[in-house]
Amino acid sequence: MTPEPPEEFRTLQELEGAAARRLSEEVWAYVQGGAGEERTVRANLEAFARATVRPRVLRGVAELDLRCRILGRPVAAPFFVAPMAYQGKVHPDGEVGVARAAAAAGLLGVYSTLSTRSMEEIAEASGAAPRWFQLYHQPDVEVERRLLERAERAGYTALVLTVDTPVLGVRDRQARGGFAIDASVPVGNGPDVLPPSRAPTPEGETYALRSDAAATWELLDELHRVSRLPLVVKGILTADDAHRCVDHGASAVVVSNHGGRQLDGVPAALDALAEVVAAVGPGVEVYLDGGVRRGVDILVALARGAKAVGIGRPVLWALAVGGASGVGRYFSLLKAELATAMVLTGRRTIAEVDRTLTVGWGSEERRRPGGA
Amino acid sequence: MTPEPPEEFRTLQELEGAAARRLSEEVWAYVQGGAGEERTVRANLEAFARATVRPRVLRGVAELDLRCRILGRPVAAPFFVAPMAYQGKVHPDGEVGVARAAAAAGLLGVYSTLSTRSMEEIAEASGAAPRWFQLYHQPDVEVERRLLERAERAGYTALVLTVDTPVLGVRDRQARGGFAIDASVPVGNGPDVLPPSRAPTPEGETYALRSDAAATWELLDELHRVSRLPLVVKGILTADDAHRCVDHGASAVVVSNHGGRQLDGVPAALDALAEVVAAVGPGVEVYLDGGVRRGVDILVALARGAKAVGIGRPVLWALAVGGASGVGRYFSLLKAELATAMVLTGRRTIAEVDRTLTVGWGSEERRRPGGA
Amino acid sequence: MTPEPPEEFRTLQELEGAAARRLSEEVWAYVQGGAGEERTVRANLEAFARATVRPRVLRGVAELDLRCRILGRPVAAPFFVAPMAYQGKVHPDGEVGVARAAAAAGLLGVYSTLSTRSMEEIAEASGAAPRWFQLYHQPDVEVERRLLERAERAGYTALVLTVDTPVLGVRDRQARGGFAIDASVPVGNGPDVLPPSRAPTPEGETYALRSDAAATWELLDELHRVSRLPLVVKGILTADDAHRCVDHGASAVVVSNHGGRQLDGVPAALDALAEVVAAVGPGVEVYLDGGVRRGVDILVALARGAKAVGIGRPVLWALAVGGASGVGRYFSLLKAELATAMVLTGRRTIAEVDRTLTVGWGSEERRRPGGA
Amino acid sequence: MTPEPPEEFRTLQELEGAAARRLSEEVWAYVQGGAGEERTVRANLEAFARATVRPRVLRGVAELDLRCRILGRPVAAPFFVAPMAYQGKVHPDGEVGVARAAAAAGLLGVYSTLSTRSMEEIAEASGAAPRWFQLYHQPDVEVERRLLERAERAGYTALVLTVDTPVLGVRDRQARGGFAIDASVPVGNGPDVLPPSRAPTPEGETYALRSDAAATWELLDELHRVSRLPLVVKGILTADDAHRCVDHGASAVVVSNHGGRQLDGVPAALDALAEVVAAVGPGVEVYLDGGVRRGVDILVALARGAKAVGIGRPVLWALAVGGASGVGRYFSLLKAELATAMVLTGRRTIAEVDRTLTVGWGSEERRRPGGA
Repeated sequence: MTPEPPEEFRTLQELEGAAARRLSEEVWAYVQGGAGEERTVRANLEAFARATVRPRVLRGVAELDLRCRILGRPVAAPFFVAPMAYQGKVHPDGEVGVARAAAAAGLLGVYSTLSTRSMEEIAEASGAAPRWFQLYHQPDVEVERRLLERAERAGYTALVLTVDTPVLGVRDRQARGGFAIDASVPVGNGPDVLPPSRAPTPEGETYALRSDAAATWELLDELHRVSRLPLVVKGILTADDAHRCVDHGASAVVVSNHGGRQLDGVPAALDALAEVVAAVGPGVEVYLDGGVRRGVDILVALARGAKAVGIGRPVLWALAVGGASGVGRYFSLLKAELATAMVLTGRRTIAEVDRTLTVGWGSEERRRPGGA
Repeated sequence: MTPEPPEEFRTLQELEGAAARRLSEEVWAYVQGGAGEERTVRANLEAFARATVRPRVLRGVAELDLRCRILGRPVAAPFFVAPMAYQGKVHPDGEVGVARAAAAAGLLGVYSTLSTRSMEEIAEASGAAPRWFQLYHQPDVEVERRLLERAERAGYTALVLTVDTPVLGVRDRQARGGFAIDASVPVGNGPDVLPPSRAPTPEGETYALRSDAAATWELLDELHRVSRLPLVVKGILTADDAHRCVDHGASAVVVSNHGGRQLDGVPAALDALAEVVAAVGPGVEVYLDGGVRRGVDILVALARGAKAVGIGRPVLWALAVGGASGVGRYFSLLKAELATAMVLTGRRTIAEVDRTLTVGWGSEERRRPGGA
Repeated sequence: MTPEPPEEFRTLQELEGAAARRLSEEVWAYVQGGAGEERTVRANLEAFARATVRPRVLRGVAELDLRCRILGRPVAAPFFVAPMAYQGKVHPDGEVGVARAAAAAGLLGVYSTLSTRSMEEIAEASGAAPRWFQLYHQPDVEVERRLLERAERAGYTALVLTVDTPVLGVRDRQARGGFAIDASVPVGNGPDVLPPSRAPTPEGETYALRSDAAATWELLDELHRVSRLPLVVKGILTADDAHRCVDHGASAVVVSNHGGRQLDGVPAALDALAEVVAAVGPGVEVYLDGGVRRGVDILVALARGAKAVGIGRPVLWALAVGGASGVGRYFSLLKAELATAMVLTGRRTIAEVDRTLTVGWGSEERRRPGGA
Repeated sequence: MTPEPPEEFRTLQELEGAAARRLSEEVWAYVQGGAGEERTVRANLEAFARATVRPRVLRGVAELDLRCRILGRPVAAPFFVAPMAYQGKVHPDGEVGVARAAAAAGLLGVYSTLSTRSMEEIAEASGAAPRWFQLYHQPDVEVERRLLERAERAGYTALVLTVDTPVLGVRDRQARGGFAIDASVPVGNGPDVLPPSRAPTPEGETYALRSDAAATWELLDELHRVSRLPLVVKGILTADDAHRCVDHGASAVVVSNHGGRQLDGVPAALDALAEVVAAVGPGVEVYLDGGVRRGVDILVALARGAKAVGIGRPVLWALAVGGASGVGRYFSLLKAELATAMVLTGRRTIAEVDRTLTVGWGSEERRRPGGA
């Protein structure tokens, strides 16, 4: 039995459509779904759709460079693979396929605690490309300590601590689709690694939470003691929490609402970006994920203060459609879109992407031009 | 002939869909419909859809408590069954089924003058759980006096006077669906209890109204004379009327537009909340009904000053789908959603739900953070 | 051949649907259509849909009176039949049917120069009820003079001069539907009465207009010389033109965009109302037509300064569905809706409908309450 | 084999529908499509849909004149044919058909470097009517010089330099539709004329651009040296770039986002107009293209400072439907709409179209009337 040949796609819409056809309803609901009424899922996309970009002309862009640094390490472009669990449900290549494609494209990949392949296999597939390890805080301290040691040993160069998932959100589409995270899903990092727990269950008159769900900001201090890796805190949407990240030694924060999968009703990632950027100040890098689909979206996020952006669902679509080669093709498309957007806004380098790129953020010659 | 087995539902959408399938068109029109073009029905939902919530992370929520007090009485959660007439049209269990489920869940139930079961049966089904009696002012003073005496005797602990229904609204969907409140609908509290009258009918050159429709604020004073129960005034949307509630000794007010069933074009309940909360001041409790569907909606209403919220249509959907056990299942879902939303906004108790929860209402550390 | 029996309707939606079924596509396109993309047609409706009404409770409305005066003459309610041409295309009863229904309901009717029945027949059908004559300025001065004399003789008590139709608008839906105002349409007021001319046609390098299209404000002065009837100017949307109406002795103005049939892109009638009311001051009455569908819409227009409102398309729907008796039934529905809306906003009389009725217009006790 | 007879159309919607039926999917995708998600395509239309126009009445418009001057040359109306490539794909008449229709209507036509007919043929078809030559900057300087010489010799009276297309935008609909600009498309101006290049392709770690894509503002100076024709710069959306046009001797600028075909996310042309008009000052003419569909749209653009507007897609629709005679018919419709809109806003001449025409731009007698 040979696998279906990967489908060709020339555009993002074709990619999404092909993935929808290729995945089972159950897995598609898992990939696309969000929490509750999926207001925040839509808000992530709509915030980019509302953004308006100021094009510039005749700027002499003879050569174009997409490269930049993320936490000091050079990458081919300011976007990375966002951490996503259970990629083996989408395609047999799973995280190894994604890592291979990211490495070939010179991109940073972030891989989940809940990968279906082991972090060592993923590291091997990543070759010389940078990789980060995403951590879901574990109820068993020893399990967590072993994960961190393995990550460091396997060449992961940062820890991405996800803080917006003390319990799983109310994922109705997933529930209706019948997707369950159960024993049938392989946990690449070992059987004692646990996913976040479900909704708090009543215990007498109150609701008790699993130990990992009850973590405080002290957790960052503990992680610093256990691991030498720089800490990136993922799932920050408010200035208050951003301040605490800085106070507890985070090297970077990811403005994210978990792709709209946790609490329906929180702001779009892009709408929360400015507040977080202002709060952390220049010493801490800020990334964003949620709603980035197009090359121009990347420019918008960078113009508003992000250092790089994470790409989520489209990577899964591409993985579903063509495994590692599908993901590679998608990265090429996105780089080409980004390059085109840079030419059309007159930017030769990522460093030139400043806040004058979006309407209302002032202009080169005059602050706040007419109508802004 | 055995009844159909209750349908299972895992999500609110499945519940609503199942209810639509199970009820006759006529009853469904009654349940879902509102006044006129149903602008206010939609506005109730849209106001919650527009609300944006500030999540908080790493707040050390080890244990969670949904309990609170409503007019001094402890309840398991800050939501209650809104008063709704004719529940026997939806399911043979009617109000008795709802009361049984509310009691099992430790929730306050408010039951209508126009229940299809007697208030005494409902009281018995409520057991130790708190129950309030909703009053439609009666044209016959003696009928009203007897209702109040029975309520007090049956252990109802507050009177909820509905003031927004001097006449019934223009309920087009109901009219088209053919739903009529006629002799075929049993009036559990006795045949001399009357529903609000229809649109005023012309009498010569003017329109005369039935005596109950012509009530003034003196009605509250009269009720205080007849009954020792605290008075909750339901159907307040303006500061002016809220002031009068306070002046006439109301213990609480319910910000409500009768689920959009009375005057199409009045504000969403959530949009009117702040004005009423500001008007009554701290001595009078404010509740809200209209548009509450999700756990996070409850938090939003509480953050904006409500002490508790009433749940309307979803209770009828659950009753239609599974009788008392359907309602119980819905209450479990809603509590789980509320608990999840509290964890994800970092709240351990209902008392911690303050105005910093919604964007634009300031923050813990800085008033009005960037962009708010 | 007997006519189909009139269809019953209980709601406005049923009425509109029944009319759509009963009229030919061509006539329906004429009735419903507007200019261009029909943006202004939609804007008329959306402006009312956006309006928010402040309900009031327990105001002791024991008796209700819809009566008011329009230009000093008593009418049963503050709405009137807007002038509409060619009503015989919709139903054999035509304007005579409408007039009979208006008279029975005690309502003012305004009848078009381009009625399919003669103004004398209409006057007879109107009995004791007030009627006004709508004038399309005629290219032939003698034709116009005779029309005015006949109107005065037949008991019309005001002239409504339509000023927004020097040429017909670009009515695409009508053009697509194939509706043509040609010789087959009877002109009740005589064969020498002309409709407004079509789009200006090129003449060499410029475009010449028929003499009536080229009128100036002097026209009002001429009409005062020819007729003793008070002059109502219809089709005013700006303060500038409203000032001129006052300067040239108009007794009243109608804020109207001709139901969105003239220039697509002009404001909704309701959105233009405040500007015109402020411009004319207290000595001149202001009416509105365009988008009024519901009883509560009438209150909104009155709260914002209109003395009365004209009803257009719904009258044609009712005429199509049931002739005179259909129109009568519609008037009853609308009066009942208006009465219900008055009870629910606590108004006993039309004089009590003030600007506190709509949110943002202040309140009884405090100017601009919280949130307004 | 005879061609299908041209379809009749009475309205713009019929025209668009007929074109959609008549063109292949591939060509229709080319005509209608834009960049990315086509947000900017929609924004162009929505900006006009949002504009509100102040009608005026009784202004004595006895005669109407649509004529005006564009760069000093008289034209029959303030709209022109926007430059569009490959018109031979739409109809065998191609640019020659459009030119013939424009000449008959007394309108300015702008013809693309990438026309499917030679500029000399087009010039001949244009007769005495003004024509401008649109230039895509060529990688081969000699090729460009010869184009400019031919244009001057063939009686083109201005050069329209398109500056927003250093590379082609990401045209997904076109890619999905399978439209390719390849060898099969005749290049009327000779085989050595090149279209803009595709997305920048990677070269090692950076992206190199074709020489023409790397142009700077010096290009304008070079063109002035090579050609005596006045220079119109097309594709300006910001004040910054508008200033540079003035500095480098442009006679006019076209506010344009290339019909939404270049960078998705840039502002609607109409929304960018005010900023550009303010930036260039009175000495330089400003035109607009993108979203103009109706006569009233032309007035809106003129009221906001445009001297004339370009018409794009509708010309192609008309060409598809009826060749030269279809285009002629469309021009007649649009002129009639414009004339009607002028009468209904009380304007006799194009010079009278001032900023009081759009709400919020002040009024004749009072600045900023009530509500504006």
